[in-house]
Amino acid sequence: MRLISFSDQGRTRIGVLRPEAGRVLDLQAVEPRLPWDMATFIAGGEASRMAADEAAGQASPEAWRALEELTVLPPLPIPARDILCVGKNYRAHVDELSGSGLGKPGTASDVPEYPVFFTKAATTVSGPEEPIPAYLDYTESVDYEGELAVIIGKEGRGIPAEEAFDHVFGYTIVNDVTSRRLQRRHGQWFLGKSVDGFCPMGPALVTADEIDDLDAVRITTRVNGEQRQSGCLADLIFGIPELIETLSRTMTLMPGDVIATGTPEGVGAGFDPPRFLRSGDRVEIHVSGIGTLGSPVE
Amino acid sequence: MRLISFSDQGRTRIGVLRPEAGRVLDLQAVEPRLPWDMATFIAGGEASRMAADEAAGQASPEAWRALEELTVLPPLPIPARDILCVGKNYRAHVDELSGSGLGKPGTASDVPEYPVFFTKAATTVSGPEEPIPAYLDYTESVDYEGELAVIIGKEGRGIPAEEAFDHVFGYTIVNDVTSRRLQRRHGQWFLGKSVDGFCPMGPALVTADEIDDLDAVRITTRVNGEQRQSGCLADLIFGIPELIETLSRTMTLMPGDVIATGTPEGVGAGFDPPRFLRSGDRVEIHVSGIGTLGSPVE
Repeated sequence: MRLISFSDQGRTRIGVLRPEAGRVLDLQAVEPRLPWDMATFIAGGEASRMAADEAAGQASPEAWRALEELTVLPPLPIPARDILCVGKNYRAHVDELSGSGLGKPGTASDVPEYPVFFTKAATTVSGPEEPIPAYLDYTESVDYEGELAVIIGKEGRGIPAEEAFDHVFGYTIVNDVTSRRLQRRHGQWFLGKSVDGFCPMGPALVTADEIDDLDAVRITTRVNGEQRQSGCLADLIFGIPELIETLSRTMTLMPGDVIATGTPEGVGAGFDPPRFLRSGDRVEIHVSGIGTLGSPVE
Repeated sequence: MRLISFSDQGRTRIGVLRPEAGRVLDLQAVEPRLPWDMATFIAGGEASRMAADEAAGQASPEAWRALEELTVLPPLPIPARDILCVGKNYRAHVDELSGSGLGKPGTASDVPEYPVFFTKAATTVSGPEEPIPAYLDYTESVDYEGELAVIIGKEGRGIPAEEAFDHVFGYTIVNDVTSRRLQRRHGQWFLGKSVDGFCPMGPALVTADEIDDLDAVRITTRVNGEQRQSGCLADLIFGIPELIETLSRTMTLMPGDVIATGTPEGVGAGFDPPRFLRSGDRVEIHVSGIGTLGSPVE
């Protein structure tokens, strides 16, 4: 099932998306007992998904609305917690950053021995086609990072890798937009990662059952139509089960938590000279089986 | 005014604290129109404070309840966002960490040129006298960090240093409990800072008008009665106005945001060998004019 959050006359709703038909079913309109917001829907787990499935199966054709009539929001418009992110999780991306001042100085290899976790403030989240406010980065070093994000569906601490997927509700796309100079200047990455509007997310939240072969999922990022990034999940240094196991070993994961799993090589900072985003650019991140997240740059 | 959040028969309430009398006024009981939770109260700004002041002035003596009958919660029991923190913000603390692997290798000085911001997951927050679950840190390197925390009262982006205090609602105490080995091992500090229950906070949120001379405010940390840390806010490398200006330059600060301003020298990692916390220890952080935050270690 492909779920979206959308705005209809100022109210936030959730819907089932049929992308090939360009149609959306307003779940609350066909089944008023279903939650109105994605966070509550996710917390409802399998029961939510089954009720939505049933509602979608029984809805009359007229109940499906045209996608273009609605404003698509990020799947989780106001996340309850900051976005969890993983740095340096593709080998070729680690290599491209080694000369940029973001590597680990004084070591033979920059490839991390343990996963590197950081966060983006919840206020960074924005929707598909919402402009990335590059003008807010006064250091003029705005970079894209196309990523697959995992949405946690079930609370847990001490989740072993073998049971990690029991806690995954689904997947979406994020652009972990970064101010490279602020990221470097402030030592820890939080500030350079947390500029307002620097986390486009969506369009759809795709439930876990829709993805047959995660390893084959490919992330492709284009800037103004030019391909910059391409990598598949098989290339992750730390896979999704290991990320969930490591995070949850000391920290409770909650339904609605978002884990951005890292970005493949090809970021702007990896070029010499760097190719940062500018006003008027357009970024598109395609993740196979999930969708395409487009963002103009302002 | 000194405000606390407390639990009464399973319900969260807010109250005005008179610490010298050991008395608490249940604000909602005397003025039902006042918000029941601290986040809403803070968002109400000056109007909340004035209404609470009036209610406290008019309440009969019987309306003041004995503090020991209540369970004191952290002032913000469920923060809407992760806790914002500042690293290496006292010179002597920077020096004591330089040999620990947490310094910046290959540089003449570890003293940061720009403030170092990181976060603790909102799930770390716990109340006064709640045990610190040191057993969750499987690397057995649990350390204390006594800090003054600023509570933001008014939303803002691009706040100049001169106007920073207009956005401060008040102050409280936090213990930025840290797993030193996880902090180092995972490169970025988030994971080692975000172990469940690793952010004792409180007891009181003291409104900004109560503090005459911030520079003179002194933070003292004791472990099992032995003084370990002592520093005053005059020694901050980056003061509160500069922290608010730098954070808000690119990121909207929201009412209820918590900024832990950094810890003075004397952490366990600064000793050789390190003196980490163990089950049975007791940590007490005293901040002059604010109160004392005590935590047993489990």
